[in-house]
Amino acid sequence: MPYIKIEVTREGISREQKQTLIKGITDLITDVLNKDPQLTHVVIQEVDLDDWGYAGEQVSVLREKGITADKK
Amino acid sequence: MPYIKIEVTREGISREQKQTLIKGITDLITDVLNKDPQLTHVVIQEVDLDDWGYAGEQVSVLREKGITADKK
Amino acid sequence: MPYIKIEVTREGISREQKQTLIKGITDLITDVLNKDPQLTHVVIQEVDLDDWGYAGEQVSVLREKGITADKK
Amino acid sequence: MPYIKIEVTREGISREQKQTLIKGITDLITDVLNKDPQLTHVVIQEVDLDDWGYAGEQVSVLREKGITADKK
Amino acid sequence: MPYIKIEVTREGISREQKQTLIKGITDLITDVLNKDPQLTHVVIQEVDLDDWGYAGEQVSVLREKGITADKK
Amino acid sequence: MPYIKIEVTREGISREQKQTLIKGITDLITDVLNKDPQLTHVVIQEVDLDDWGYAGEQVSVLREKGITADKK
Repeated sequence: MPYIKIEVTREGISREQKQTLIKGITDLITDVLNKDPQLTHVVIQEVDLDDWGYAGEQVSVLREKGITADKK
Repeated sequence: MPYIKIEVTREGISREQKQTLIKGITDLITDVLNKDPQLTHVVIQEVDLDDWGYAGEQVSVLREKGITADKK
Repeated sequence: MPYIKIEVTREGISREQKQTLIKGITDLITDVLNKDPQLTHVVIQEVDLDDWGYAGEQVSVLREKGITADKK
Repeated sequence: MPYIKIEVTREGISREQKQTLIKGITDLITDVLNKDPQLTHVVIQEVDLDDWGYAGEQVSVLREKGITADKK
Repeated sequence: MPYIKIEVTREGISREQKQTLIKGITDLITDVLNKDPQLTHVVIQEVDLDDWGYAGEQVSVLREKGITADKK
Repeated sequence: MPYIKIEVTREGISREQKQTLIKGITDLITDVLNKDPQLTHVVIQEVDLDDWGYAGEQVSVLREKGITADKK
């Protein structure tokens, strides 16, 4: 019975990216823990940039300063 | 001090249904645990069908295939 | 696809009380929303009294002062 | 590694109030626990008044009755 | 800024399995969303079998009846 | 109606530190949002080091390597 919640800043995630995450995480967890996928739920919650704080600053402010969360 | 969170796919839940859930869960929990309702909070979070995955598939895709979550 | 999380202070909830909550909430939600119980998960999380704050005070301190959360 | 989630009824919180909360909570937690702010995330989730229940009633109904959550 | 929470029944997950989940989910999310791993946190929460309800029954009761969540 | 959840690695937080967090966060939120403290709940959840992943690694492994989350 796994339940997985993904919280991520709302910055243009496509429907296809969401499906890739759902499929990939379900496969990973059901493989590693030998769980029935029919008992595995994944929920994605996008969070507005004004509503996520990192290191004491709103992410919307960080983005205005040109600071991204992109992989380097 | 109970706090209850309900996450459910966004598929046309009415204001009255929400009120029925809030009243019913509050009554149940305060009865079973003998808790003060004034200390009992219930939060409902509706989740878009693209954002809920079940058995590795987006619920929006399952619905397009005619697969529902209806009681049988 | 409902998922329900109950957070409550750890104050001697019995296995039977938990089962009553799980059964009652599942019945309520699947009835009101017409959902398949096989897609309905309920998770109970008990929280130590030092870890729950109410009105700015630890519940453990409130209990030492004789303040309960009992229904009146 | 602290992660903090604030859930609050959606009743006109401004961007500046959110920033004050994010800064204040990050400062408090990193001071009290001696944690690196770069490892501290704060997420604010506003909840519609129909979706928050208190003492068995929807907050939207309480507000219609003139009952507020204002500090006295 | 992704944050991922995994809730799963406590049924003997090893430290190595947890590390495999953490690594796999972090790689998947940072790849699909092009996110910096330094901004990616994963939290695993194991839930006692008395505290997880499925289809209105405690999982501990389901296990006593020989019903597992194993992959078929 | 604010509800606040703090998740933090379990690394020896004292009862007094928890009380300081609960009091400080409640004061901050009720001041900034003008909310009644009687409607404000704070929950602290400590997470074992094997159960928290950062940048794809278990925090327990990071600590063994001498990498801390201390403020610099």
